[in-house]
Amino acid sequence: MKIAFMDHASATPVKKEVLETMLPYFDRHFGNPSTVYDTGTEVRQAMEKQRAKVAELIGARPEEIIFTSSGAEANNLAIKGVALARQKKGRHIIVSAIEHHSVINSARFLERMDFEVTFLPVDGYGLVDPDRLSKAITPETILVSIMHANNEIGTIEPISELSAVCRGKGVIFHTDAVATVGNIPVDVNELNVDLLSLSGVSLAAPKGIGALYFRDNLRLMPLIHGGIQENGRRGGTENVPGIVGLGTASELALKEMPDKVNHVRKLRDLLVSGIHDRIEKVKFTGHPEKRLPGHASFCIEAIEGESLIIMLNHNGIYSNTGSACASKALKTSPVLVAIGIPPDLAQGSIVFTMNSSNTVEEIEYALEKLCLVVEKLRSLSPVWREKKING
Amino acid sequence: MKIAFMDHASATPVKKEVLETMLPYFDRHFGNPSTVYDTGTEVRQAMEKQRAKVAELIGARPEEIIFTSSGAEANNLAIKGVALARQKKGRHIIVSAIEHHSVINSARFLERMDFEVTFLPVDGYGLVDPDRLSKAITPETILVSIMHANNEIGTIEPISELSAVCRGKGVIFHTDAVATVGNIPVDVNELNVDLLSLSGVSLAAPKGIGALYFRDNLRLMPLIHGGIQENGRRGGTENVPGIVGLGTASELALKEMPDKVNHVRKLRDLLVSGIHDRIEKVKFTGHPEKRLPGHASFCIEAIEGESLIIMLNHNGIYSNTGSACASKALKTSPVLVAIGIPPDLAQGSIVFTMNSSNTVEEIEYALEKLCLVVEKLRSLSPVWREKKING
Repeated sequence: MKIAFMDHASATPVKKEVLETMLPYFDRHFGNPSTVYDTGTEVRQAMEKQRAKVAELIGARPEEIIFTSSGAEANNLAIKGVALARQKKGRHIIVSAIEHHSVINSARFLERMDFEVTFLPVDGYGLVDPDRLSKAITPETILVSIMHANNEIGTIEPISELSAVCRGKGVIFHTDAVATVGNIPVDVNELNVDLLSLSGVSLAAPKGIGALYFRDNLRLMPLIHGGIQENGRRGGTENVPGIVGLGTASELALKEMPDKVNHVRKLRDLLVSGIHDRIEKVKFTGHPEKRLPGHASFCIEAIEGESLIIMLNHNGIYSNTGSACASKALKTSPVLVAIGIPPDLAQGSIVFTMNSSNTVEEIEYALEKLCLVVEKLRSLSPVWREKKING
Repeated sequence: MKIAFMDHASATPVKKEVLETMLPYFDRHFGNPSTVYDTGTEVRQAMEKQRAKVAELIGARPEEIIFTSSGAEANNLAIKGVALARQKKGRHIIVSAIEHHSVINSARFLERMDFEVTFLPVDGYGLVDPDRLSKAITPETILVSIMHANNEIGTIEPISELSAVCRGKGVIFHTDAVATVGNIPVDVNELNVDLLSLSGVSLAAPKGIGALYFRDNLRLMPLIHGGIQENGRRGGTENVPGIVGLGTASELALKEMPDKVNHVRKLRDLLVSGIHDRIEKVKFTGHPEKRLPGHASFCIEAIEGESLIIMLNHNGIYSNTGSACASKALKTSPVLVAIGIPPDLAQGSIVFTMNSSNTVEEIEYALEKLCLVVEKLRSLSPVWREKKING
């Protein structure tokens, strides 16, 4: 059977070159970076080299990078860390309504700690409006968190405009860039953000590693209290092999970026136009241009997304209904609700995320099978039959 | 040059067998465990098998294990998670004065959140007295956290007696077992604890993985909020290769335990008696019997510990002044202060931690070099000269 893996937002195999650089750090260079003897200091130096590579990928300085165990941990550290460190200045934070669960649920946690949270609505494309953000900011506002791109609908937010609004009012700005770092060029100075979260998963680095960028010694309450690691900002022995993997993957991502962007954009456009040509009653979700180049998302009428995913899987095609973190938990995606998709249509959500390893042949194969599977599922759907009868 | 690595409490090379089981999960089985298609479900099933192995090592049920990124994260989750979930029942917690930084600093964080914290004193061996604990408990007490063994002085606490005190008063009991799991048999039912933290580092599993045992659906506020991972108790894509490493290492640890305990105890006894025979003015720290079998700790008069570590390092011998997490941060160890070691003597702290790979020859080599290095350092020490003159 042919295989077309097109759920790279959820998982990506670690590249051979990345894994090879990690291997010596499991057994040969196994020292604890906090120790003073040679085995420890050599590992610490290696770790600092990797920090510089991650920093370079996003235009930051090495000392502005904290390694975490995931993008989710980076988001938690940013939001809770800033809120708890700055609570004397104010207790209001703003996040968009379409943030990742790790942001939304960190904000909900702060609500329970007597912070006030505004969940900012988005338009039909999922875009946050800078004017609307400006109006939502009060003298109590200490933090705004808006994601760089949405993982379910692919929309890229106007971060530099949004951060400019905050900069003008002395409000800290964080962006969850898990969906963009490694997929499009990301520069913390162009974006003009104070904090930025990234994850190894989007970089073909291993699971279990992420990072938080924080500008200029910004004060943060640690999420994981402990020893002196990460300058006292994150306790626990560092995941050295993971850090080496993230560093190597960052270096590769920087080199491969232009080719990757062109390649996946071409594939994405082919998939989008193919679906529009060959399947009726499909709603493309997210912004048509302001979107991740390798990201295509749809809602297919009268289809249950999970059945679709599983039948495509039987044909060797891997896609997702939305966010992997929620795929078993939620019946209707809050992101699709926020952009105004009716609940029954939202059930038919499907997301394809591509990377350099995907090919034109895979797209053609996926299109062929997708048409057949949709036809099959609709033939079994009473909703569809009714729709056809009623026009 | 000969090499004798005797700082296994800080770092241990990942075993070949452990690394081999991890490798397929970097690239071949790379699916996200939260996805519904085959690549995801196969990884989820593998992860659940590993959970069962970790559970078995400590006599727990698989559903009572949450994977974390480190022992420090497990400690933070236990302490903040219980305190924040139970704060309506009371706002007082008790920890011992010799806990790891991740416990002490989590408790200090809670103090800033208007919890009251009692730091329970210990005796000269580092032991917590159950009667003293009992007296410290008030109607406001919701949580007690006492470590299973101390990483700096090797003392094993009377956990089942301490937990019995708490059980009788309806107080949740957590133990940080990072120093014991993998080094001595640990059973959560014998210890009768509600929560227990462990780390991959002590199990020759990779850095970046740990776990928290929690009994019977105990309520916990997540530390890392996010999606549905770990039954909603810990967000973020799971570190699958790390989890596989921890599972394999747990399985091996269970098999190798009796031999390991006997082997390291013999080496430890050899080292302790050798030091007592050959170096004058040395204070053995921690309890002589109630201690980790592979752990030997001393304070050597008129010596600066870090110089000692570095000179031993030049001879291929790896030891530590105390906790790796603090080795660059603190001049005097709070643990040594708590057991009544005078600050000047505490400066001469040295800790050796052994595992199965160490040999009698290494101990003899370390003893020989340690004597020479101590003699050399003392010959340069004005404090020592004065002591010799004054008797």
